[in-house]
Amino acid sequence: MSARQRVAELLEAHQPNDPWGRLVDYFLIGLILANVVAIILATVEPLAARYGGFFWSFEVFSIAVFTLEYLLRLWSCVDLPTREGQPPMTRLRWMLSPLGLIDLLAIAPFYVFYFIGADATHSMLMLRLFRGLRLLRLFKLTRYSPALNLMISVLRKEAGVLAAAASVLLFMLVLASWGIYVLEKDIQPEEFKDIPTAMWWAVITITTVGYGDVVPVSNGGRIFAGVVSLVGIGMMALPAAILASGFYREVHDRNATYRRAVEKALEAGRIKESDAEELEELRDKLGIDSEEAMNTLIEVRHVSGSGDRCPSCGRPFGEGESAQ
Amino acid sequence: MSARQRVAELLEAHQPNDPWGRLVDYFLIGLILANVVAIILATVEPLAARYGGFFWSFEVFSIAVFTLEYLLRLWSCVDLPTREGQPPMTRLRWMLSPLGLIDLLAIAPFYVFYFIGADATHSMLMLRLFRGLRLLRLFKLTRYSPALNLMISVLRKEAGVLAAAASVLLFMLVLASWGIYVLEKDIQPEEFKDIPTAMWWAVITITTVGYGDVVPVSNGGRIFAGVVSLVGIGMMALPAAILASGFYREVHDRNATYRRAVEKALEAGRIKESDAEELEELRDKLGIDSEEAMNTLIEVRHVSGSGDRCPSCGRPFGEGESAQ
Amino acid sequence: MSARQRVAELLEAHQPNDPWGRLVDYFLIGLILANVVAIILATVEPLAARYGGFFWSFEVFSIAVFTLEYLLRLWSCVDLPTREGQPPMTRLRWMLSPLGLIDLLAIAPFYVFYFIGADATHSMLMLRLFRGLRLLRLFKLTRYSPALNLMISVLRKEAGVLAAAASVLLFMLVLASWGIYVLEKDIQPEEFKDIPTAMWWAVITITTVGYGDVVPVSNGGRIFAGVVSLVGIGMMALPAAILASGFYREVHDRNATYRRAVEKALEAGRIKESDAEELEELRDKLGIDSEEAMNTLIEVRHVSGSGDRCPSCGRPFGEGESAQ
Amino acid sequence: MSARQRVAELLEAHQPNDPWGRLVDYFLIGLILANVVAIILATVEPLAARYGGFFWSFEVFSIAVFTLEYLLRLWSCVDLPTREGQPPMTRLRWMLSPLGLIDLLAIAPFYVFYFIGADATHSMLMLRLFRGLRLLRLFKLTRYSPALNLMISVLRKEAGVLAAAASVLLFMLVLASWGIYVLEKDIQPEEFKDIPTAMWWAVITITTVGYGDVVPVSNGGRIFAGVVSLVGIGMMALPAAILASGFYREVHDRNATYRRAVEKALEAGRIKESDAEELEELRDKLGIDSEEAMNTLIEVRHVSGSGDRCPSCGRPFGEGESAQ
Repeated sequence: MSARQRVAELLEAHQPNDPWGRLVDYFLIGLILANVVAIILATVEPLAARYGGFFWSFEVFSIAVFTLEYLLRLWSCVDLPTREGQPPMTRLRWMLSPLGLIDLLAIAPFYVFYFIGADATHSMLMLRLFRGLRLLRLFKLTRYSPALNLMISVLRKEAGVLAAAASVLLFMLVLASWGIYVLEKDIQPEEFKDIPTAMWWAVITITTVGYGDVVPVSNGGRIFAGVVSLVGIGMMALPAAILASGFYREVHDRNATYRRAVEKALEAGRIKESDAEELEELRDKLGIDSEEAMNTLIEVRHVSGSGDRCPSCGRPFGEGESAQ
Repeated sequence: MSARQRVAELLEAHQPNDPWGRLVDYFLIGLILANVVAIILATVEPLAARYGGFFWSFEVFSIAVFTLEYLLRLWSCVDLPTREGQPPMTRLRWMLSPLGLIDLLAIAPFYVFYFIGADATHSMLMLRLFRGLRLLRLFKLTRYSPALNLMISVLRKEAGVLAAAASVLLFMLVLASWGIYVLEKDIQPEEFKDIPTAMWWAVITITTVGYGDVVPVSNGGRIFAGVVSLVGIGMMALPAAILASGFYREVHDRNATYRRAVEKALEAGRIKESDAEELEELRDKLGIDSEEAMNTLIEVRHVSGSGDRCPSCGRPFGEGESAQ
Repeated sequence: MSARQRVAELLEAHQPNDPWGRLVDYFLIGLILANVVAIILATVEPLAARYGGFFWSFEVFSIAVFTLEYLLRLWSCVDLPTREGQPPMTRLRWMLSPLGLIDLLAIAPFYVFYFIGADATHSMLMLRLFRGLRLLRLFKLTRYSPALNLMISVLRKEAGVLAAAASVLLFMLVLASWGIYVLEKDIQPEEFKDIPTAMWWAVITITTVGYGDVVPVSNGGRIFAGVVSLVGIGMMALPAAILASGFYREVHDRNATYRRAVEKALEAGRIKESDAEELEELRDKLGIDSEEAMNTLIEVRHVSGSGDRCPSCGRPFGEGESAQ
Repeated sequence: MSARQRVAELLEAHQPNDPWGRLVDYFLIGLILANVVAIILATVEPLAARYGGFFWSFEVFSIAVFTLEYLLRLWSCVDLPTREGQPPMTRLRWMLSPLGLIDLLAIAPFYVFYFIGADATHSMLMLRLFRGLRLLRLFKLTRYSPALNLMISVLRKEAGVLAAAASVLLFMLVLASWGIYVLEKDIQPEEFKDIPTAMWWAVITITTVGYGDVVPVSNGGRIFAGVVSLVGIGMMALPAAILASGFYREVHDRNATYRRAVEKALEAGRIKESDAEELEELRDKLGIDSEEAMNTLIEVRHVSGSGDRCPSCGRPFGEGESAQ
C-alpha cells in the first residue's frame, strides 16, 4: 500500500477497528470542538485580555493542522474507491464537493483576514463577523455523524412539502402583519408604524416565542392576536406532521429494501457466507439495527415457510428468539 | 391551433418544456412577489414620501397586467380540456371557481377604491384596510405550487377531526378564562375585570405564546395557570398528531393507488409503451417521486414473481437496483 | 309508535333525514351556545348593568328548557334500542351515565343557588364561581360531535403511555424547581424563596410559555434554565408523538375492521342488498369516509381477483375509478 | 417457601392478585410521594419553623423504612428467578443495577450528610443542594410504572437520530449566538457583551420560551431573531417527528411479534391450553391490550382461512366480534 493510499484510508475510509484511523478521527473531532469553545470564550473580554496570547497560538496551531488536513485530503482523494477518473479532475471535483467546500471554509477566513489585514475591517461589527466565521468549522463535524444521514435524507425527500408549508407560513406572516398594522397603528404609532415593523410582532407571535416587548392593547388588536396565535399552533403542527410521516416512510422503505435483499438471499433455502456479508454491509449502509434485522430474518423465514430451522445457522428456531 | 387555444395553453396548461409558457409563469410570479414587496414598503413613511410616484406607477402597471390576465383567462378558459359545455356557462363557472375569485379579488379593490374615491374612506383605519386588501394578490400564487395540493388534500380529509380538536380548544379557552377570572379578579381587577378580558390571558397562555403582559400573581391563580399551560402542551400536540397521521395515510393511499395501476399494467408480463405513459402521468398527478415509483415497480415484480427480468425494459435485474 | 318512543327518537336516535329531529338538535345546540355567550357577557359590568333583566329572563327560560329536556330524556330513555331491562333500573343507569350527569350538571347549579340563596355565598369569589358553573353546559355539546368519538377513543387507548409521559413531566418539574431554587435563592430571595414558589417558574418554562415575570439572572441559573427549556422541547414532543402514533393506529384498525367486513360480504362474489346496508352502517359507525370505503372495495376485489366487474354493481371496472 | 423467597416475592415479583404484595407496593409508593411533598414543603420557611420537628421525625422514619427495604432487597434478590448464580456475585450485580443504585441514592445522602455534618456544608447553597438530593427518591417510582417501559424502549432505539437532532440544535445555538452578538453588541453592549452571554438569548428564543428579558432592538437583530425563531419551529418539530415514527414502529413491531406467536399457536388449528397461557404472558410483557389481541386473533384466523369458528373457543364467529 502506497503512502497516499494509507493517508486516504486514515482520513476517509478506514476500517471501524483500525486504531490509527480512529485516533485521527478523535483528534480532529477534539480539535474542532476545542476550536469552537476557544472562539466563543475569546469574545469574553476579561478572558481575551488575559489569555489573548494563548488564543492566538491555539488559532495558529489549529489553522496549521486544518491546512495540512486539507492538503492531505486533496492529495489522497484520488485513491478513494468512490472517486475514479483522472487525478486533476477528481481533485477539482473533491474541492467543489460539499465536504471539500466546508474544509476550505474552515481555513479560508483566516488567510483572507491575515492578508487583507485588520485595517480593511473598518468597523467593530465587521471584525466580529470575520472572527466568528471561524465558527463554521463546526460543519466539519458533519463528516463524522452517520445518523445525520437519515435526517438529511428525510429532509430532502420532504423538501417539496416543507417548502409549501414554509410558503403558507410566509402568507400568514404577511397577512398577520397587515392586520395588526391596520388595527393597532392609531393606538401604538411607534410599535406598529408600518408593515415591516409590525412583522416583528407577527413572527414572534406566530412562532409562539412571545417576548412581550410589543403587544396589542386595543380590543380589536387582541382578538386578532388571539386568532394569529391559534394559527401559530397549526404552523407548529405542519412541519412536525410532515417530518413524522417522512421519518416513518424513510425507515419503512429502508427496512423493505433490506427485506427484499434477505428474501433474495433466502431463495436457495439457506443464506450463503458471501450473501451474509453483503447483507451485513447493506444493513450498515441503511442504518438498520441488528435486532430489527434479526426480526426481519425471522419474519421472512416465517412467511416463506422454510421450516423450523434458521436458514442462516441451521439451528432449530425456539420462540425465545421471536420474543424481544 | 387558434389564438384562444394558444392563450389557454400558455396561461393554464402548457407542457413543462414549453419555454413561452414558463416565461409567462415566471413573469406573473415575479410580478405578484414584487407587488407584495411594494405594498409592504409603501407603508413605510419615508419611502412613501420619497418614492410615492413610483409606487403609484407600479400599482397602475400591475393592475393593467392583472386585468389583462383576468380577461384573457376568462376569454380562453372555454378551450381548457377540463372545462366543457357552453361558453357562457363555462365562463361563469370559471368566474365563480376559487381561482377565478382570487384573480378577481386581486384587481377589484383597486377599481372599487378608485371609483368610490378616498372621500368614502373617512378614517385612516379604513384607508389602511383598503390598501392592504391588495396583499390578497398573494393568493394568486397558489396556482403555481403543486406541493400545496398534498397539504390541502390532507387538511380536507382530516377536517372533521381537526374541527373537533378546535372545539375542544374553545371549551378549554372558555373554562380557563372563567377560572382565572374567578381567582384573580379581586387582586387584579383591571386585567381580569370580566371573562372576555380574561380570555386574552387564556389564549396567550394556552397557545404557549406567553407575552407576560397579563400574569396571575395570587397562589391560586398561579396554580391554575400552571395547569392551563400544561393543557396547552396537549393542545399543541393534538393538531400535530392528527396531521401526522393524515399525511402518512394520504401518501400511503397515493402509493397504493399507483401500485394498483402498476400491477394492472404488469398483468400481461411486460409494461406496454402506452401503459408506461399513463403510469408516468398518474405518477405526476399523485406527486410520487421517481425513486419511490422505481421501488414500487421492483416490489410488484418481486411479489408477482415475473422472473428475473425487468418487465418494462426486459433487462435482467441486478441487486444494485434494489439498494438505494 | 307511542309518544314516548317518538320523543326518544327525536332526542337521541332520529334518522339523519328526519326534519323534526334535526330541528330539535339545532335548537338545543343554538340554545347552549347562546347560553355560553350570555354567561360570558353577563360578567361585563356595563352590559350587566344595562341588560341585567334580559340576562335573568334568558337564564330562567334556558333552565326551563333544559329541565324539560332532562325530564323528557329521563322519561323516554327506556325506549332506546341500546338500553334494555326494567324501566326504573334503566332510568337510574341513564342518570349515572356520563351524558346523564352532564345534563344534570347543566341545571343543578341554578336550583342549588336558588334555594340556598345569595346569602350563602359570602364572598364575591364564591358568587363568581357559582355563576360560572353554568358554563359547564358547554359539555352538553359533546353529544352532537361524532368526530370527538375518534379523539376520545385514541386518548383512552393511549392513556397508559400518556400518563407515563405526564409523570415524567412531573419529575422534571420537581427537579427543575429544586435546581433553580438552589441556584437563584441567594440572588432573588423573593422570586425563588422556596420550592413551591420556584415551581411557578419551572412550569412556565418547561411548557415554553415563558411569561418573563420570573427569570434567572445568575450565570448558573441561566445555564440551568437553558437546559430546562431544552428539556421543554422534549416534553412538547412526547404527547405529540404518542398521539400521532395512536391516531394512525386507530384509523388503521378501523379501516382493517371495515376491510374484513367487506371481504366477508364479497365471499359470495357479489355484495348482497342486505350486506350493503350493513356495510354502510358499519362505515358510519367507524367514521370512514366514502372515498376511503370505495378504495377498500377496489383493493379487496383486486386481491381476491374477482374479475373485472364491480362485485356490488356488476359494471366493468375502469381505471378512472382507481385514480383519486 | 422460605422467608427469603417470600420477601423476594413480596418486594419484586408477586402475583398481581397477591393482596400482601399489593399492600407493600402501595405503602412504598405512598411513602415516596409523601417524602417528596414533605421535602418540598420543608423549604417553605413558615412551615419549616412551625413543623420542623415533624419534618425531621418523618425523615428519620422514612430513612429507616427505605434502609430496611434496601437491605431486604439486597438479601432476597438471590431468590428472584431472573437472577441466578452465586449469592455474593448476584448481590453485587443487584447493587450495581440501575434499580439498585437508585435505591442506594435514596438513602445515601442522609448518611453522608449525617456523618459529615452541617459544618462541612459551608454555604447555604450547599445545604440546599444536599437537602434536595433527597428528591431523587422520586426515581424509586420508576419500578412501579410498566408504561415507562415502552417510552424508554422507543427512546433507546431512536437514541442515534435524537442525538443527531440534538447536535443540529447545538450548531444552531452557537450560530444564533454568534449572529446576534455581531448584530446587537454595539446597541446593547451589556445584554450581548460576548457569545456566552448571547447564548442565553439564543436558547430562550430557539426553544420558543421567549421570556422577553433580552430582546434585539436593531432592525438587523430583529430580522435575524425572526429567522432564528422560525428555525425554532423546525427544532420543535424534529424530536416530535422522530419519536412519533419511533412509537409507531415500536408498537407495530410488538404487535408483529405477538402475531407471529399467535400464528405459531394456531398452526395446529386450535390454540392449546398451554399456548393460551404463554400467549397471555407474552401479551402482558409486550403491553398489548386485550382488544388489540382479540383483533389479531381474528385477523390471523381470517388470513389462514381456518373456517368460521373461533379456533380458541370453538364457537362460530359472528361479525359482531369484528366490529369494535
